[in-house]
Amino acid sequence: MRKIGIKEIEDIALGAALLGAGGGGDPYVGKLMAIGAIRECGEVTLLDPDEVPDDALVVPIAMMGAPTVLAEKAVNGNEYRTLYETVKAYYGRDIYAFMPIEAGGVNSMLPIVAAARLGLPLVDVDGMGRAFPELQMVTFTIGGVNATPMGLVDEKGNSVIFKTITNKWTEELARSVTMSCGGSVTVSLYAMDGATMKKYGVKNIVTRSERLGSALKNLKNSSTGDVEKRFLEVTDGFKLFKGKIVDVLRETRGAFNFGRVVLEGIAEYKGRKADVEFQNENLVARVDGRIAATVPDLICLVDTGTFTPVPTDALKYGKRVMVVGLKCFELWRSDAGIDLVGPRYFGCDTDYIPIEKRMEGGSV
Amino acid sequence: MRKIGIKEIEDIALGAALLGAGGGGDPYVGKLMAIGAIRECGEVTLLDPDEVPDDALVVPIAMMGAPTVLAEKAVNGNEYRTLYETVKAYYGRDIYAFMPIEAGGVNSMLPIVAAARLGLPLVDVDGMGRAFPELQMVTFTIGGVNATPMGLVDEKGNSVIFKTITNKWTEELARSVTMSCGGSVTVSLYAMDGATMKKYGVKNIVTRSERLGSALKNLKNSSTGDVEKRFLEVTDGFKLFKGKIVDVLRETRGAFNFGRVVLEGIAEYKGRKADVEFQNENLVARVDGRIAATVPDLICLVDTGTFTPVPTDALKYGKRVMVVGLKCFELWRSDAGIDLVGPRYFGCDTDYIPIEKRMEGGSV
Repeated sequence: MRKIGIKEIEDIALGAALLGAGGGGDPYVGKLMAIGAIRECGEVTLLDPDEVPDDALVVPIAMMGAPTVLAEKAVNGNEYRTLYETVKAYYGRDIYAFMPIEAGGVNSMLPIVAAARLGLPLVDVDGMGRAFPELQMVTFTIGGVNATPMGLVDEKGNSVIFKTITNKWTEELARSVTMSCGGSVTVSLYAMDGATMKKYGVKNIVTRSERLGSALKNLKNSSTGDVEKRFLEVTDGFKLFKGKIVDVLRETRGAFNFGRVVLEGIAEYKGRKADVEFQNENLVARVDGRIAATVPDLICLVDTGTFTPVPTDALKYGKRVMVVGLKCFELWRSDAGIDLVGPRYFGCDTDYIPIEKRMEGGSV
Repeated sequence: MRKIGIKEIEDIALGAALLGAGGGGDPYVGKLMAIGAIRECGEVTLLDPDEVPDDALVVPIAMMGAPTVLAEKAVNGNEYRTLYETVKAYYGRDIYAFMPIEAGGVNSMLPIVAAARLGLPLVDVDGMGRAFPELQMVTFTIGGVNATPMGLVDEKGNSVIFKTITNKWTEELARSVTMSCGGSVTVSLYAMDGATMKKYGVKNIVTRSERLGSALKNLKNSSTGDVEKRFLEVTDGFKLFKGKIVDVLRETRGAFNFGRVVLEGIAEYKGRKADVEFQNENLVARVDGRIAATVPDLICLVDTGTFTPVPTDALKYGKRVMVVGLKCFELWRSDAGIDLVGPRYFGCDTDYIPIEKRMEGGSV
């Protein structure tokens, strides 16, 4: 158990943006909301997962819809209380703590806002250890946890509870309502007891985000030594490529951003080519036509000068980026994990090979 | 307290179709469902409103969406149990009884199905005493009752609970989900305690439907005496016109059927003209350009030969109909009632004048 204040939030937001693997939204709006909530309501207690009783009700909080809409459509600050009352009324019991469902610029921050405003603790756990585009892509699905009952509230004060027969129907119905509410809403889903959270959750993800963020910040301010080497050390990352963005292809389909970014090698990669495919998050990285990494491992693009994460919606011609691969959470590498979020699910006809195995014998 | 069996259902369906005032859907599908439920689960207990304790939870049941969809998209029969469990879980207490929210071909029947399947009683009351097109058009709105918490279930087993800031938002969000679920769902809304039901409800509407239906059936089988006169006596109706349909104009806008039917006089109305405007239900009747009746009074079209009600979706060229006006429930004639369902709400720029006043000094 420890406190999260403004300094921690800055670091968590930066680190979570890296773990967002290209998605999870821009951390700027979320960070401002979290800092505002802490200034107003005080610091948030971060609980280690093992500090949560097995029978306590733990509720993940997230934003559903387009992060770009959130940037324009302000929240009113009461969403979390409405959601709290809604979920509490449904279960007929108190919520013990909030938690994030994914690591990412926006969705790592909103549970902090909720915790601050409701005076509840936040659990140091999530259901992905990264960001994924679809609602059912959480470790809790592997554990048989249903996304519903799912709570949804908008900034006007409307609230909805869904209970669906499959998580696909959750997506379908919640997306309809999200659109009717203006394109961005606050939700709680995969509410679960402490025992389930401990069994299937990605533990200590908030702390990991914070440490990563802190290290990235220090690197950014450092001008001595081999910064790139230290970046790879602190992230435990594999360097896949370094290049200049020469093309970005985008397509919005089914409320997702699909696309591909094409890179031309620089420095030691001069003369070589690479590309990264994405659906909100980066899915597959290819170097000279050969697969270098795939989901569920994390494929992250960072600025070669500042090591700041570059999300898929900020990709643009001329930007120089390093492509880095990070090992995913162990449970994603199980058969059930690969079924849920492996390359074939996303239409990439290849087996999943762990990134450290692909990188055996050095870089691609 | 009395029992409702198959004979009663036949009569209720016929009478409710008249009180549907052109809307409320074709009673055929609803009647089949009600008869099926009673054959399977036994007769339903009909309670007088005064037999319901003041603090008992009473829940109206209805269909939302297009009745034409319901005719093609079968129900699975478990909707009412899901709805029951959903509402019960939300309130944390048992439902004492179901009730209809409006009188009409479909929505007078579904609460009987729910009551039979769940073994609960039905209360002899509704919130309109007729049918109206929009969700907020119930006497309970005048009493300050909110439409939400509203339960919605589909035939697949998905369920949703809405809690909205206004009844317009209830319409908006529930309609989105209804469309995503395939265009027809079962809902519960305006759940209330017994005291509120007794204070604002239209009492004995089921019994009134049944008596009307029974009388219409007898008239239909009768061939002696002045049947038309007896029809007007049993319905307490005002004859506004008799004519042949010479034109039907229809427009589907905002998920409603808007339109106008034009009549050419027959018999004692020979040489005269009339028209009736509708939005699902009949709104305004004009004879020779002069208003003969408006909402909230009921404007009903019946077959001149059989006295069977003719709903707006069954209007067609050449059909001979009598236009009949019926007095609406007293509460609709209050200022709040006229605001909610008076002619101006529906875009007809005229004051509401009670039908018996318009008819003073004989027919139009």
